[in-house]
Amino acid sequence: MEIDIPEVKAELEAAFARYETALVTNDVEALDELFHAAPTTIRYGGGENLYGYAEIAAFRAGRSSAGLARVIERTVVTTYGRDFGTASTLFRRETAPGKIGRQMQTWIRTPAGWRVVAAHVSVIADPDLSA
Amino acid sequence: MEIDIPEVKAELEAAFARYETALVTNDVEALDELFHAAPTTIRYGGGENLYGYAEIAAFRAGRSSAGLARVIERTVVTTYGRDFGTASTLFRRETAPGKIGRQMQTWIRTPAGWRVVAAHVSVIADPDLSA
Repeated sequence: MEIDIPEVKAELEAAFARYETALVTNDVEALDELFHAAPTTIRYGGGENLYGYAEIAAFRAGRSSAGLARVIERTVVTTYGRDFGTASTLFRRETAPGKIGRQMQTWIRTPAGWRVVAAHVSVIADPDLSA
Repeated sequence: MEIDIPEVKAELEAAFARYETALVTNDVEALDELFHAAPTTIRYGGGENLYGYAEIAAFRAGRSSAGLARVIERTVVTTYGRDFGTASTLFRRETAPGKIGRQMQTWIRTPAGWRVVAAHVSVIADPDLSA
């Protein structure tokens, strides 16, 4: 299995960038589109565990759009073959000094485009500050 | 892409079960074996962000084996095609009442067997207790 075929990686990087823009602007329509609409899709969020696309969409619809701005760092997009990939990034928010967020997503290629099938977001104390 | 081909799903479920046993017994050799030995492998842990297999192996080698016992729940293993899959589970530890852990892994099939290429572990206050 070939890792990081350049044109595949570029595709997934573009999908990831689109997701990031949708997230910080709380573009619920785009966020919903970019998650795979299936009962198998899972999202562990900052404070909730969502099983299946319906739970994820309900969460998006009810979420406040306040305080979503963030700066990402150490972002790594990796593709495996032509149809599968992961996107991992750290993030910081001005509203949460001393904390670092982690977002990890698994993406698959569908006939409609790249879609997230599993995602996990969490926030911890920045380990670089406790050294 | 076919989701959850029965024999493929059974393979990944077996790999996941092997990982779980290795984790709670702190079988570092098995844990190391089950992560893909590549610089692209990422593990966001309960309190650390590890980029590349070398950082992950160093963390395993230095980890205390105390307090790793846990009970898992709502485990979902999903395969996409024959070579990719995800494993998501919640977990609880007696030492952390009121908290719920979340573990999400992305697996690929390699010539040597199924391997984790991305993993994210976090612990939050149990949202079911705050309802």
